Amino acid sequence: MSSAVKTGMNPEALNALLAAVRTFVQQELFSVEGRLRSLHDFSALEPELEQLRQKVRDRGWWLPQLARVHGGLGLSLPDFGRLSEVLGQSPFGHYVFNCQAPDAGNMELLLSHANAAQRERFLEPLLAGRTRSCFAMTEPEHAGSNPLVLSTTAQLEGEQYVLNGHKWFTTAADGAAFALVMAVTEPQAHPYARASMLLVPSDTPGFERVRNISVMGDEGSGYFSHAEVRFTDCRVPVGNLLGGAGAGFMMAQERLGPGRIHHCMRWIGIAERSFSMMCQRAVSRELSPGKALATRQTVLNWIAESRAEIDASRLLVLDVANLMEREGQHAARYRVSLIKFHVAAMLQQVLDRAVQVHGALGLTDDTPLAMWYRHERAARIYDGPDEVHKDRLARAILQEYQSGAAS
Amino acid sequence: MSSAVKTGMNPEALNALLAAVRTFVQQELFSVEGRLRSLHDFSALEPELEQLRQKVRDRGWWLPQLARVHGGLGLSLPDFGRLSEVLGQSPFGHYVFNCQAPDAGNMELLLSHANAAQRERFLEPLLAGRTRSCFAMTEPEHAGSNPLVLSTTAQLEGEQYVLNGHKWFTTAADGAAFALVMAVTEPQAHPYARASMLLVPSDTPGFERVRNISVMGDEGSGYFSHAEVRFTDCRVPVGNLLGGAGAGFMMAQERLGPGRIHHCMRWIGIAERSFSMMCQRAVSRELSPGKALATRQTVLNWIAESRAEIDASRLLVLDVANLMEREGQHAARYRVSLIKFHVAAMLQQVLDRAVQVHGALGLTDDTPLAMWYRHERAARIYDGPDEVHKDRLARAILQEYQSGAAS
Amino acid sequence: MSSAVKTGMNPEALNALLAAVRTFVQQELFSVEGRLRSLHDFSALEPELEQLRQKVRDRGWWLPQLARVHGGLGLSLPDFGRLSEVLGQSPFGHYVFNCQAPDAGNMELLLSHANAAQRERFLEPLLAGRTRSCFAMTEPEHAGSNPLVLSTTAQLEGEQYVLNGHKWFTTAADGAAFALVMAVTEPQAHPYARASMLLVPSDTPGFERVRNISVMGDEGSGYFSHAEVRFTDCRVPVGNLLGGAGAGFMMAQERLGPGRIHHCMRWIGIAERSFSMMCQRAVSRELSPGKALATRQTVLNWIAESRAEIDASRLLVLDVANLMEREGQHAARYRVSLIKFHVAAMLQQVLDRAVQVHGALGLTDDTPLAMWYRHERAARIYDGPDEVHKDRLARAILQEYQSGAAS
Amino acid sequence: MSSAVKTGMNPEALNALLAAVRTFVQQELFSVEGRLRSLHDFSALEPELEQLRQKVRDRGWWLPQLARVHGGLGLSLPDFGRLSEVLGQSPFGHYVFNCQAPDAGNMELLLSHANAAQRERFLEPLLAGRTRSCFAMTEPEHAGSNPLVLSTTAQLEGEQYVLNGHKWFTTAADGAAFALVMAVTEPQAHPYARASMLLVPSDTPGFERVRNISVMGDEGSGYFSHAEVRFTDCRVPVGNLLGGAGAGFMMAQERLGPGRIHHCMRWIGIAERSFSMMCQRAVSRELSPGKALATRQTVLNWIAESRAEIDASRLLVLDVANLMEREGQHAARYRVSLIKFHVAAMLQQVLDRAVQVHGALGLTDDTPLAMWYRHERAARIYDGPDEVHKDRLARAILQEYQSGAAS
Repeated sequence: MSSAVKTGMNPEALNALLAAVRTFVQQELFSVEGRLRSLHDFSALEPELEQLRQKVRDRGWWLPQLARVHGGLGLSLPDFGRLSEVLGQSPFGHYVFNCQAPDAGNMELLLSHANAAQRERFLEPLLAGRTRSCFAMTEPEHAGSNPLVLSTTAQLEGEQYVLNGHKWFTTAADGAAFALVMAVTEPQAHPYARASMLLVPSDTPGFERVRNISVMGDEGSGYFSHAEVRFTDCRVPVGNLLGGAGAGFMMAQERLGPGRIHHCMRWIGIAERSFSMMCQRAVSRELSPGKALATRQTVLNWIAESRAEIDASRLLVLDVANLMEREGQHAARYRVSLIKFHVAAMLQQVLDRAVQVHGALGLTDDTPLAMWYRHERAARIYDGPDEVHKDRLARAILQEYQSGAAS
Repeated sequence: MSSAVKTGMNPEALNALLAAVRTFVQQELFSVEGRLRSLHDFSALEPELEQLRQKVRDRGWWLPQLARVHGGLGLSLPDFGRLSEVLGQSPFGHYVFNCQAPDAGNMELLLSHANAAQRERFLEPLLAGRTRSCFAMTEPEHAGSNPLVLSTTAQLEGEQYVLNGHKWFTTAADGAAFALVMAVTEPQAHPYARASMLLVPSDTPGFERVRNISVMGDEGSGYFSHAEVRFTDCRVPVGNLLGGAGAGFMMAQERLGPGRIHHCMRWIGIAERSFSMMCQRAVSRELSPGKALATRQTVLNWIAESRAEIDASRLLVLDVANLMEREGQHAARYRVSLIKFHVAAMLQQVLDRAVQVHGALGLTDDTPLAMWYRHERAARIYDGPDEVHKDRLARAILQEYQSGAAS
Repeated sequence: MSSAVKTGMNPEALNALLAAVRTFVQQELFSVEGRLRSLHDFSALEPELEQLRQKVRDRGWWLPQLARVHGGLGLSLPDFGRLSEVLGQSPFGHYVFNCQAPDAGNMELLLSHANAAQRERFLEPLLAGRTRSCFAMTEPEHAGSNPLVLSTTAQLEGEQYVLNGHKWFTTAADGAAFALVMAVTEPQAHPYARASMLLVPSDTPGFERVRNISVMGDEGSGYFSHAEVRFTDCRVPVGNLLGGAGAGFMMAQERLGPGRIHHCMRWIGIAERSFSMMCQRAVSRELSPGKALATRQTVLNWIAESRAEIDASRLLVLDVANLMEREGQHAARYRVSLIKFHVAAMLQQVLDRAVQVHGALGLTDDTPLAMWYRHERAARIYDGPDEVHKDRLARAILQEYQSGAAS
Repeated sequence: MSSAVKTGMNPEALNALLAAVRTFVQQELFSVEGRLRSLHDFSALEPELEQLRQKVRDRGWWLPQLARVHGGLGLSLPDFGRLSEVLGQSPFGHYVFNCQAPDAGNMELLLSHANAAQRERFLEPLLAGRTRSCFAMTEPEHAGSNPLVLSTTAQLEGEQYVLNGHKWFTTAADGAAFALVMAVTEPQAHPYARASMLLVPSDTPGFERVRNISVMGDEGSGYFSHAEVRFTDCRVPVGNLLGGAGAGFMMAQERLGPGRIHHCMRWIGIAERSFSMMCQRAVSRELSPGKALATRQTVLNWIAESRAEIDASRLLVLDVANLMEREGQHAARYRVSLIKFHVAAMLQQVLDRAVQVHGALGLTDDTPLAMWYRHERAARIYDGPDEVHKDRLARAILQEYQSGAAS
């Protein structure tokens, strides 16, 4: 998180904030969903969402995750976790509060590593919500789970880096003002020290957004999109290097830790909303006159199991948020792996049940369930697939047994 | 199936047929997929698919599920099951062979119940592939799992039925020449005898296709679509009654039995294709130079488990197909329930693993996996949700214990 | 818990206590396991266990769950939960600290409801560890999940209750000084007010312990046993009525709430021990020279998933313990249902994985895994099967949706 | 199977046989269960079981798996599979028909590899049911999943092999007349050619049965036991070498293939019996007066899912039996791996559900469910754990993709 100190809110203030934001989300954001049949139309919604953003600014909720000195609300990570769950109940929550991925992660990196010129040019408009950004790391030719293998290069020629390479799943590149690009600048260095991070404005010649990838049926547009991007002799001044040369991998890791916990927090929100929809459906949908779905024990099982699984996930996530707030993200890194796969599995499970309880309606885009069912399948893949996080966590645990520290 | 007698092919002939069709599917149909990013564009593909249909006619494979006397290939149900698996490997297989839902089911109903005039007007063009049809039963206001509860009515006024009602998930209504519509004509009768089936041409005034429902991100078009339909004082002549007045429920059941087994057969094909893609991916995708995904035990587990589950499903489906061919669909009705939920679960499981093994690529529409992942989620819902089929099967089993027949 | 006020320990004191008890358990209790091939031999171990009990008394750890005024350590419920986890790592932990079921629950009932004479005769020796007790509720003829249906009667004849009936799964009846017996005394009352609870000394004529039931291969003996019991004209004085006539059901519920949370706390301990054994095995067992089990990704998956599931269960249980401590067991009753089924499922899962990682060794009684695998299968059945708890929780949740309180 | 040709029975004859044996099993064998609370007492039952064996001989059902020329019934492998399912419904079925493991596998080996003297001394009494045998391969110090790593040696000294080593899970060693022992005789050879198989009479000096291992709570006795065995300078004449020197591994594999399919066939029988008990319980056990367990949808789900899973397993097993009968066990080896893990998982699942439906009764040894729940947990471990079989199958599948044979 930000380097500025943030202390947790007192419980009463936090609860009041959460209640107010919950009301806002339900009254102002749920209604927008009705007009969004699918993510194709996101750009068309932007003016309306900008009005909502203004309301958020007016209420002092803008940038809840950042310290007040940066124009934020100054929530601690655990407090933000609570808020993030509320925001996650709407597909627009984080966006409207300007704490959406990938911008939130990019802001963190810029806050930590940008020099004054970079701050002014790239960070300030982002904090203000006047621009958006993207993060170009994953390459189609290489396993995203292994960030050490990159083909994109940025060769230093005089005062410029010349970028060549191919990226995809560059989320929100469509309409972004600039990209943070991972590229190899030190090919002879140790694998962990080969890549650097460059700030590349979208209008730089040689920066080509090939397409918005059609993902689970949606090409999307604007913020809701994942681009394939190609860099061909794309030149940026050396001043666009963020952090040190060769520090890209380290910075990417620094970005991913909190990024993963942010995702987990948001997933809890999606799960809660889906759970609530499942319960509403169970009491209101009739199988035959006078006999609601809620009379079926299978539905009761799903509700009980979902309640337990969501609550367990929330406790785990808040526990890790506390650890990270207290001891930093390095100390929390294996716990982050733990919640990453555990909460993603819970989310998929709860969504699957919610869809089933909704029957044919659950398959339509008349509710947000189908969109989440489709797009949050990615939760088990992005920022490291389940398999990588399980492996990592288990190896860390076993190291203590191998060393004799545990018994 | 059709009333005309069909005997099973000899094994050699069948294997030769399957091999030839497999080659056709791989060479002619897989290549079409590349141009179909999502189902939005289906209509645009229709001319190309018509050419493929002509090739199928030329090779004598047209209408594989129907007896030769109806212009078909005359396969027995088990033999068609084997073929259907091959066709199912492409999203276009069944369509190109004119054995796709809902038309195949409608053909069966018309073959069994249509009078000469109905045959000439509705059935012949369908068999020839000059028209398409749809089946309008499910209503948004009522649980699709309980077909006894219908609000759509068809009141007899003189020589006409006047339809009023609201349907949805009327698959392929977009572009269909006519609909088979379930409507209450005998409101005073026993619940099982209230509904009738009417043949309603799409251009009949009062037949309104409200929209193609956006399902899992796709509104689709033409054949690949699910419509919401409204009937407002929509009048058809009494001669458009199919079968007897009040026979609708019985005929719908008659249609659903083989319909479900056809779905199961197609799902095996989807599962096999996904399995094959998962294996290809495992041996070709590298986690790091020289180290393929196939070196990961988790991936090996998924491959082994998928192999077992697909094979088990195929054996179950063919076993039921044999039973149905031999003893008729009434005898097989509980076994059909058994395969309906069992094979649908297998399909979802295999698709989920195949997506995971493909990583980010599996989420894109660059392969058919994401489309199947989204649209075959419906397999656990349409034609009776899992819960209904499990209930039905278990009650039939327990009846024998209650009666003392089993011990 | 006890009516006497207990405040939570400060964290440092609690951690010091936990560390000391952990050392005691590992050094003094793990070694006893080696001599216990199966539970048949429990009685033979009793002298040795009594020595260990004395050490516990000497260290001031006796009756950790009870207030100091009753001779206990005075832990709050959440603090006891932490301790219980440590004790649960040994099959003898709770017994040695005199906080084992069913005695702990019986003590609570007696503390709340016994009159002075009953306290002196029944409670004092129990607190001192000089006697053991049992709780006779479940009847073989009726579903244990429905405590309202009881056939055992206690008819008032003059100054005596005359008991007749048949019980089973009367845990630890073998060697118990007395039983708390649920029997119908008011057959005409409302179902919830029919039963009473009677204190029945084991040597009362007509109190017959028919057998120790062979459960999962063990008849057991002494404390480790589950008896079938028959009451035939078994007479106790009216003074042996505990609480009011007709209050049995209410008191049984009062006993079960904390009883279930105690079980959950103990299960976490079993799961942690099994987890630890699984990890030790993974790093020490070789598949071939130099290649440990820990190199297999399947094993890594199990370790990672188990870690997540155990931690989630602990957080849930402690959360409910806090709620119960703060607001009482009525407020926590649905949350207790939630942890009851959730933690039991986790336990079975972790035990199954630990057995599999141990291979053939895991099947033997050379480790405690097989005993837990067998005997903790009951966790999903006793004190209400999973199905009942899920039903209960889900209905409570849905009630808020039906009433409009939730949305 | 045996080298003697066996042709499948005609369907009518087979069905008549199955019906007769089913009646025999239900009438004669189910009643024995009642007297067997646990496996401790097996030896005490032997005289009674010998009487039952005589009835089997009298009816011509003896050795159903062997050709008539060897005194058997001459069933083909698929036909024996059908019969084995019937026998598997009783814990005594296979024993009473003399087709129990490990004897059946040992008979096969002796039929294929024993010379005349070995046949006369070891095989004939075994076929007659006058003796029992055991198979000593697994060693506690090495992973049973890797049969190439053996520490037991048999050094040739003059005309004798001198055995030294340590075995466990030597099933049925207690009371066996002799053991087939795997020992390294050619330590310098290729790993696959190091071990030989020796016939070692139980009364040979240096052959020590250390103990019957307590497995899942049962030490057992006689046939129902698993021994730990130690060989200390145990000398047998060279004439006791079975097959060639160094052929042990090959022969062990030859034995395991059919052994695994035999286990799968037996498991189907256990699953069917458990299924039947679950159904009986569902219709007869009341939750409250007039409301049977069968009214609970969760129970219906389990019944439906179990029906599907058992049927799928049976079809898979018979399919592999046909393949093995037709093309030999080498051709079927990967399919055997497939059914080994798939059917074992089904069995555990069905047993778990049957126990849960029985509630407390399911935990007791008053039904055979608890015994199977305990002892068939081993199904996922013996003859190769799930993980090894999945690995093996998946690698075989992927080889075709790597070589380009599959696509």
